[in-house]
Amino acid sequence: MEKTDKDSAQDSGQTAYVSILSRASVRSYEDRPVERAMVERLLRAGMAAPSAVDRRPWHLVAVTSRDKLVRLAVANPYASCARTAPLAIVVCGNMRKALEGADRDFWIQDCSAASENILLAAHALGLGAVWTGTYPRMERCAAVSRALGLPPHLIPLNTIVIGYPKGEPRPKDKWNPSDVTYM
Amino acid sequence: MEKTDKDSAQDSGQTAYVSILSRASVRSYEDRPVERAMVERLLRAGMAAPSAVDRRPWHLVAVTSRDKLVRLAVANPYASCARTAPLAIVVCGNMRKALEGADRDFWIQDCSAASENILLAAHALGLGAVWTGTYPRMERCAAVSRALGLPPHLIPLNTIVIGYPKGEPRPKDKWNPSDVTYM
Repeated sequence: MEKTDKDSAQDSGQTAYVSILSRASVRSYEDRPVERAMVERLLRAGMAAPSAVDRRPWHLVAVTSRDKLVRLAVANPYASCARTAPLAIVVCGNMRKALEGADRDFWIQDCSAASENILLAAHALGLGAVWTGTYPRMERCAAVSRALGLPPHLIPLNTIVIGYPKGEPRPKDKWNPSDVTYM
Repeated sequence: MEKTDKDSAQDSGQTAYVSILSRASVRSYEDRPVERAMVERLLRAGMAAPSAVDRRPWHLVAVTSRDKLVRLAVANPYASCARTAPLAIVVCGNMRKALEGADRDFWIQDCSAASENILLAAHALGLGAVWTGTYPRMERCAAVSRALGLPPHLIPLNTIVIGYPKGEPRPKDKWNPSDVTYM
């Protein structure tokens, strides 16, 4: 039976859906660099996230220098895998683009959506990644800022450590019907 | 030429990657319900998100009753499309599962990652969705809590309004190289 356009769209959708469920945190990487074009694809995915009032209050720092990666590993105890990883992306809130007053903190949600897009894009493209939290732990924010020499208007939300996975990552099944209410 | 397993994996990855870039906010829906099985698929995607120390501090409220959808539209001025939409998912932080002390607010990032997964899953499955912000606007949190009768340990982060899209959603190209630093 021949496939219609609608069938193809459904197959693609199914593939994209399954990719969301099969993502796992990856902390162990092959000794192999991530190509620059691949890095840009991850950054593009990050910027495809939605943001409050379309302010796009993010700044993405792509780190491949070994010296800076080691500094990131020291700055955040959960980012120790950055020590030998080929790549980290530090997702920052850009306070020059954030909303004002009571809406300022929407940057956290916007940058988190961008971060999740980066994790999913990494998984889709055959990479592995792990989100290690920085903000709102102020001492970690200060340490990451110092490690990278960030200007004061950039607040580091996290360090996403990335590389080609060593071994086969195993996703957890986190579905829990008691965390749902229907109404 | 025959396709190898690796070729197929690359095709699938490409599809999943493109799906992240082609997502758009959708605020106009067909007059058609979202099947219960589809709702569960969205909720499963939400719970596949990563969370700090794997606490999974979310509670997902899936709203299909017209009365409650209208209340949600009134509670949050940006959620007016809920008035006629078939479905909304209110992503809440569950303070009984959140981390303690200085780490408590990681729930915002965890629930934002879950929200982005729901948006991407909706897009992958042929639905359209829009994230309308509630937290940290306290008056909107109170209004959404009242509208749904939420217990005090649940904090509504947003109202994700969902339905089958009317017309063809157009994604924005938000790529901006000046929001990147390489180091």
